[in-house]
Amino acid sequence: MSIFVVTATDKDSKARVGRLATAHGVVNTPAFMPVGTQGTVKTLSPRDLREAGAEIILGNTYHLSLRPGTEIIRAAGGLHRFMGWDGPILTDSGGYQVFSMTEIRKVTELGVMFQSHIDGSKRFLGPKEAMQIQADLGSDIMMCFDECVPYPCEYDYACNSLALTLQWEKFCKEYRVNTSQLLFGITQGSVFKDLRRRSIGSLVEIGFDGYAFGGLSVGEPEEVMYDVIGDSVDLFPADRPRYLMGCGTPENILNCVELGIDMFDCVMPTRNARNGTAFTSVGKIPIKNGEFKNDLSPLDPVCSCDTCRQYSRAYIRHLFNANEILGLRLLSYHNLYFYLGMMKNIRSAVAGGTFREFKRDFLKVYNGNNQP
Amino acid sequence: MSIFVVTATDKDSKARVGRLATAHGVVNTPAFMPVGTQGTVKTLSPRDLREAGAEIILGNTYHLSLRPGTEIIRAAGGLHRFMGWDGPILTDSGGYQVFSMTEIRKVTELGVMFQSHIDGSKRFLGPKEAMQIQADLGSDIMMCFDECVPYPCEYDYACNSLALTLQWEKFCKEYRVNTSQLLFGITQGSVFKDLRRRSIGSLVEIGFDGYAFGGLSVGEPEEVMYDVIGDSVDLFPADRPRYLMGCGTPENILNCVELGIDMFDCVMPTRNARNGTAFTSVGKIPIKNGEFKNDLSPLDPVCSCDTCRQYSRAYIRHLFNANEILGLRLLSYHNLYFYLGMMKNIRSAVAGGTFREFKRDFLKVYNGNNQP
Repeated sequence: MSIFVVTATDKDSKARVGRLATAHGVVNTPAFMPVGTQGTVKTLSPRDLREAGAEIILGNTYHLSLRPGTEIIRAAGGLHRFMGWDGPILTDSGGYQVFSMTEIRKVTELGVMFQSHIDGSKRFLGPKEAMQIQADLGSDIMMCFDECVPYPCEYDYACNSLALTLQWEKFCKEYRVNTSQLLFGITQGSVFKDLRRRSIGSLVEIGFDGYAFGGLSVGEPEEVMYDVIGDSVDLFPADRPRYLMGCGTPENILNCVELGIDMFDCVMPTRNARNGTAFTSVGKIPIKNGEFKNDLSPLDPVCSCDTCRQYSRAYIRHLFNANEILGLRLLSYHNLYFYLGMMKNIRSAVAGGTFREFKRDFLKVYNGNNQP
Repeated sequence: MSIFVVTATDKDSKARVGRLATAHGVVNTPAFMPVGTQGTVKTLSPRDLREAGAEIILGNTYHLSLRPGTEIIRAAGGLHRFMGWDGPILTDSGGYQVFSMTEIRKVTELGVMFQSHIDGSKRFLGPKEAMQIQADLGSDIMMCFDECVPYPCEYDYACNSLALTLQWEKFCKEYRVNTSQLLFGITQGSVFKDLRRRSIGSLVEIGFDGYAFGGLSVGEPEEVMYDVIGDSVDLFPADRPRYLMGCGTPENILNCVELGIDMFDCVMPTRNARNGTAFTSVGKIPIKNGEFKNDLSPLDPVCSCDTCRQYSRAYIRHLFNANEILGLRLLSYHNLYFYLGMMKNIRSAVAGGTFREFKRDFLKVYNGNNQP
């Protein structure tokens, strides 16, 4: 059986619908992956995630390997069992966090010596370790170890970094422990199209189960991101899933689906929820604002999630103002439901040949509120 | 139909099983009421509460009247609708909080002028206001406005306070807005038996739907509390529910059921949960401790709650150590399930004529761990 099957393509764009088979079930694409950094999607239970429509979630190798450590997760039978989520899990490699969250001591061909952001202890992470840790976590999709260069970035730095990243990705494929865990390669190269093209060529030559854009959605103008993706996405084999890491807003996702992206992850729906921002069909609303004090309508009148069926804006605002944890949870649930519902609608629209209309209508209503 | 029917009594003690009819359904007694101070039982949703076995919850008049204010709750159709809980709710009168949490400006026969602990604003709460607020909240059981004197307390202070409290309780019955909301009287009198007896006599003369012990479980030795209850509980009419406010530990509850108490409330299961303490059949365990780092067994091997069926001690410890909110929720759920399950077992034991054996066996196992 193929790992990934494209079941429909959009007539007006590169948007496509597919099914990605993993050891813990099928993921319908385009898919959004809620982020469960420390073995939990913040404030939510696995049952909440299922009910909100999640088919796959993301776990972070860097965080989990430092705390609680892979030993206990392996002893529990893997991350699925440890956290009680029996659906597919994608784990990143830890590369992004090592380069962005720690004090780096030494980078070599074998990996990175760094200090833990938790206790300052000396640690080492490279392609071999990233593959072993992800094998211990037992994720369904593993990501290659890479350096995600920041934006802006000098061409020379991006070029040299890319050479090392490609070396690491080659090692990752060699060090892969368990072939039932899919392995995705990651293109880097900052915003330089020639580096992107070269890196994708090398990755395809190595051969992975899927491919990801790394190093985008890191502060560059959105148009630049779209331009880089549009320029290089066709270099990936059509029969492999394409994952844009760490992106993005609802509008970003719609635009990138249109460019041929199949998978997304972002902390935005859950992090914004904890800050009191609700995503709704008419745009974002800051629920703590005084204007909602007496508003007995649901967060989003057209939403059918449990939060919107049971609770009012006034109640959720009260929970936030009174520092009640239930508020964080109700809003996180709603925001994920909003994102995951949007993905479902995207899939239906692409399959039904109406993606262009869907996107236009969605953004018209969504932006109507944000940009009056 | 009677409000309260005793369906079984223990042959060896004053323990009894009953059914209390309210506007939002029947409560089986002895009952434990989870505390939902600010319109939410901290970290839990109404669905969680139902699944954990809650039949009635408690709301706090003082907190809710200050934030979000009764106006919005009344506009929402009452506290049930506002917070999404369709079962019975008991509300306290705010008296306890006014005397313990605020700077009091002036106490008169009409009530108390005080400063809000939230914004320092001047407020007034007395029997009339307490009845009106509880009418606006629409609770199933309202409590009379009283002064809960601290422990220790001089006899003269307790005596004078009691006179005013009884006056206020009389006013509460007069000012009661809606007779479909039950109204409970509260006995005060600190640990002085003559004051307790006198106060109960006066309350019964006024006549309430149920009666509560206030001013106990406030720091006095447990034996003193048991002694006061034992000395005066029979003065309450047998066909009315008896509620011991703000109590207590599992052992307190077992002892007070034995003395004839029907209803309890306490923040202990939820507050202790947020501090990382789990109630289990073999006693309390501090889940953050290092000894649980690699412990893949459930919090309580004999517990069938969702937390114990899905998650290990090691996982919950990890959530606490990583400051993940889900940990607070999983432990709050378990602790309430433990308390509510204990109440269910108490009811079965009393009905089955085995309460004495149940209590003995329960405490033997429960204290075996705490007091080796």
